[in-house]
Amino acid sequence: MLEEKGILKVSSSFLARSMNLTASQVRQDFCNFGEFGQQGYGYDVIRLKNEILKILGLTKRYSVIILGAGNIGRALAGYGGFLRDGFEVKAVFDEKSDIELENGLPLLSMDSLQEYVKQEKPDIAVIAVPGQSAYEVAKKAVDFGIKSLWNFAPIDLKFDGVCVENIFMSDSLYVLAYKMNH
Amino acid sequence: MLEEKGILKVSSSFLARSMNLTASQVRQDFCNFGEFGQQGYGYDVIRLKNEILKILGLTKRYSVIILGAGNIGRALAGYGGFLRDGFEVKAVFDEKSDIELENGLPLLSMDSLQEYVKQEKPDIAVIAVPGQSAYEVAKKAVDFGIKSLWNFAPIDLKFDGVCVENIFMSDSLYVLAYKMNH
Repeated sequence: MLEEKGILKVSSSFLARSMNLTASQVRQDFCNFGEFGQQGYGYDVIRLKNEILKILGLTKRYSVIILGAGNIGRALAGYGGFLRDGFEVKAVFDEKSDIELENGLPLLSMDSLQEYVKQEKPDIAVIAVPGQSAYEVAKKAVDFGIKSLWNFAPIDLKFDGVCVENIFMSDSLYVLAYKMNH
Repeated sequence: MLEEKGILKVSSSFLARSMNLTASQVRQDFCNFGEFGQQGYGYDVIRLKNEILKILGLTKRYSVIILGAGNIGRALAGYGGFLRDGFEVKAVFDEKSDIELENGLPLLSMDSLQEYVKQEKPDIAVIAVPGQSAYEVAKKAVDFGIKSLWNFAPIDLKFDGVCVENIFMSDSLYVLAYKMNH
């Protein structure tokens, strides 16, 4: 955002304020990854951004498949924002093959997942199936060779040597309800 | 899930295992809200569920409006799961009025938001517009009387006396990328 606004340098105290941290926390966090700033000068915005992208692994590109073509799967398939960050959705898989995707992405049958993963070696599988089938679908993907899961199903998924990140939408809504009542 | 499986009672150690906590943590957490279990017997599944629903505020029903009819807004509008939990989507608002919603929900113009909020008093507004317009749209909703925001835009929203819960999808994807590289 600072880059888009044409701002060239930024202080740790400015960054701290925007993230509800202290300037010292910001400096210490950055220090864990090297020295990005100069005492009394602050951080060069573009250099800092590039260093953070490197730390996060966002200078690479990732190929993504989506398992499940329901509301969430289709929304993710149609969302252009991920591509900008280097995450490219390559295909969507579903049990039902009569669903059409508007954006030209191939919708493939779950039966062809093994062959696809073997050939294309996608980096990330998005679990966008209902909770009841999420473990079974994720297990298949992992058995076929997937090493990273982005999970939208409301269950904990754990597999040895597999990275998992969860988006628990219902939990977030429950927390909102709790806040509204307390 | 236990209820669906017909399981009638459950121990704190079983609950702890399923959530990566210790039995003592589970018991202490529940203790903060009253006594739901009996020493040596465990928790009655249905009673425990009902107590947790009460704590979370999920025994009430909430009316929800969605601000933004892009991919995320439409997916949320079409997702039936929230209704089961008591969150009923009543209307979707967007700048563009030429978008059709498949599920019969009214798609209204952002211009009619003030009148709608005044008349219908929805409990929750979902912020499903792009980051650049999210603050402005949320500010309007709050000025018109909305007290709770479920925010999908990648910015922090803060307003006095307003509950906010965030779903930062891109952040989650960045964390996944970080895990994949470390």
